[in-house]
Amino acid sequence: MDLLLRDVRPMGAAPADILIRGGRIAEIGPGLDAPGVTVEEGAGAIAVPGLVEAHTHLDKTVMGMGWYENAVGTALRDMIDNERAARHRLGLDPHRQSMRHALALIGAGTTHIRSHVDIDTDHCLAMLRGVLATREALAGQVEIEIVAFPQSGLMIRPGTLELLDVALSEGADLVGGLDPCGIDRDPKGHLDAIFALADRHGKGIDIHLHEPGELGAFSVELMLERIRALDMKGKVAISHAFCLGMPDWPRAGALIAALAEQDVAILTTGAPSREVPQVTRIQAAGLRMGAGCDGVRDTWNPWNRPDMLDRARIVALRNNLRADADLERVLALCSTGGAAVMGRADHRLAPGCPADLTLLTGSTLAEAVAEAAPRPLTIKAGRVTARHGLALTEAP
Amino acid sequence: MDLLLRDVRPMGAAPADILIRGGRIAEIGPGLDAPGVTVEEGAGAIAVPGLVEAHTHLDKTVMGMGWYENAVGTALRDMIDNERAARHRLGLDPHRQSMRHALALIGAGTTHIRSHVDIDTDHCLAMLRGVLATREALAGQVEIEIVAFPQSGLMIRPGTLELLDVALSEGADLVGGLDPCGIDRDPKGHLDAIFALADRHGKGIDIHLHEPGELGAFSVELMLERIRALDMKGKVAISHAFCLGMPDWPRAGALIAALAEQDVAILTTGAPSREVPQVTRIQAAGLRMGAGCDGVRDTWNPWNRPDMLDRARIVALRNNLRADADLERVLALCSTGGAAVMGRADHRLAPGCPADLTLLTGSTLAEAVAEAAPRPLTIKAGRVTARHGLALTEAP
Repeated sequence: MDLLLRDVRPMGAAPADILIRGGRIAEIGPGLDAPGVTVEEGAGAIAVPGLVEAHTHLDKTVMGMGWYENAVGTALRDMIDNERAARHRLGLDPHRQSMRHALALIGAGTTHIRSHVDIDTDHCLAMLRGVLATREALAGQVEIEIVAFPQSGLMIRPGTLELLDVALSEGADLVGGLDPCGIDRDPKGHLDAIFALADRHGKGIDIHLHEPGELGAFSVELMLERIRALDMKGKVAISHAFCLGMPDWPRAGALIAALAEQDVAILTTGAPSREVPQVTRIQAAGLRMGAGCDGVRDTWNPWNRPDMLDRARIVALRNNLRADADLERVLALCSTGGAAVMGRADHRLAPGCPADLTLLTGSTLAEAVAEAAPRPLTIKAGRVTARHGLALTEAP
Repeated sequence: MDLLLRDVRPMGAAPADILIRGGRIAEIGPGLDAPGVTVEEGAGAIAVPGLVEAHTHLDKTVMGMGWYENAVGTALRDMIDNERAARHRLGLDPHRQSMRHALALIGAGTTHIRSHVDIDTDHCLAMLRGVLATREALAGQVEIEIVAFPQSGLMIRPGTLELLDVALSEGADLVGGLDPCGIDRDPKGHLDAIFALADRHGKGIDIHLHEPGELGAFSVELMLERIRALDMKGKVAISHAFCLGMPDWPRAGALIAALAEQDVAILTTGAPSREVPQVTRIQAAGLRMGAGCDGVRDTWNPWNRPDMLDRARIVALRNNLRADADLERVLALCSTGGAAVMGRADHRLAPGCPADLTLLTGSTLAEAVAEAAPRPLTIKAGRVTARHGLALTEAP
């Protein structure tokens, strides 16, 4: 795709034009000319690399299905079981729902999504197939990476491991996992299983780890042992990783250093009610780190929105980030940071890089992040995918 | 003011009309008729008591003054000193700025505001006079309670106490205070001074207490001693009260019980980066509790917005409140809860109560809170003050 994006401020700097050829950035500079190429006027908006939703659940949202009345407690196990039953009762269509969710994200400037997708013995591969159909339908508009996620447990639900195996053959990109101690009650069994599966398929791992303090630290240690044994450096991510926010500063620091040595990535939602890995600390240790909104308007939580600038605010509030430089840092977390976790090291505004970008409104980068106004324009590989906060493809 | 508000759902219940006479609710029921009385159509919206912003700083916002670039650290002392200097540099007009802030709150459905106003030896009473002018300009549209607040310290800045004294004579409603240990470095001196001042003027106290853990607990104990000695039961509020969220559950519980005995109110912002008093725990102990957005777009923080439904979300996220019943609880915190702290026990939708209410959009109360759509209508004492999220009075 060829496109001339005129009068934008790359990363808030001086006005320039961005010339896109074949879906990649060809040139950035003032007064570019490209006869015959379609022109988009940026009107002085700030251009940044596309936002990256690096931890969500496209198969869970009830957006557009009326208000879901939540009467379940906040124990993880209760919310898991409630959801599995609710999906049947509500008649949740995973393709339609993931389309709605993904298109809302595109509208909000997103060019890359990593989504966990539930695999369990009740719903088997139905969620995966729905999200795979969405990935195909939105090809060229957003990149969707799929994690085959044993949300209901692995060792405690025989048959799940075999389903994960099929899921990876059918198109899932990564192996998921979940609280090896807290939910699956068998940390050795759980981790041996998912690491062996990832190793056999030659795929990476992204594990949900809600376990706090020493329990989570123990699970992290078990993961590190397997990463070293299987030579999986750079192929594993830990989502949430609440234990890395534990008050025992040196203990958390030693874990973070060990994770850095194995290039393990961290994904955060900035959960305000939990201890969380501190953004500045994780970044200073050299780990790749991204962020995500988690599930949006689902049976778990009514508060999350499909917007990475909204998430930037929550992560910043949780991490007490207030200064302009910190707002830029948290914006980077929500774009280049998540992209690095997804293996896109070239997610930036520079010649040769993919033309994946979004425009923001504000006099400075920091103001644009704080205001979080609807994104004027989103571009994926040179193609305009959204205007004024709305995806051009209509949601079902 | 007389008004017939037609077709609303009080607290999300069945549609009804609300007849207002002389600024108070006269009758609530279906199919009311009142010849000659102005009619407003509610179009099925949910009616709730007006939102109450119970902890903010109307004298601090830079709204409408261009982006404020924040380069200061997050140490309390640094942010205090930075602000005092920035006010001069920016030429912050406290009347104009507090008008902008208060009108934004009115637009978002607010009928009552408790604002701390800085009193210091640099700016003397300038901030107070600005906010007093705003209170007068907006009389009949919003009730503004003013706390004379020694933001820069009391014992460490001689002359401040005398200014507080004058502030109370000039119209401030309550005596403020601030971290007797952490900022003022003299807990006995600080608390003796503000309690004596409050006692002499026959006014209440609302003290900022950011001190965590045992330090904050010590300050709370000193406050309780003075409340008992001066018989100030029911006249004191603690804002933030982070120490009540300390991990030592029984220790915090004993403090909370002692506060309940003296009817001390708690005001929270749900600060995501701090330990906070848990809403369910404080309410279960029988304490009056309200919430506030704190300063909005000021030299402290770019994230806060002048909207109590936005604050309901932050408080809920921090407190892990997700179920529908909890969303209703957090809405109540942001209306009747704050009103109770401000001494308005009759802030509810019932005949005889002041006609202070706002309409919300949603099929249920919980959905309305989660969606936080612009408020269709705000009414103060029977007078329409805002439509579609915008105050009818134009901001300067």
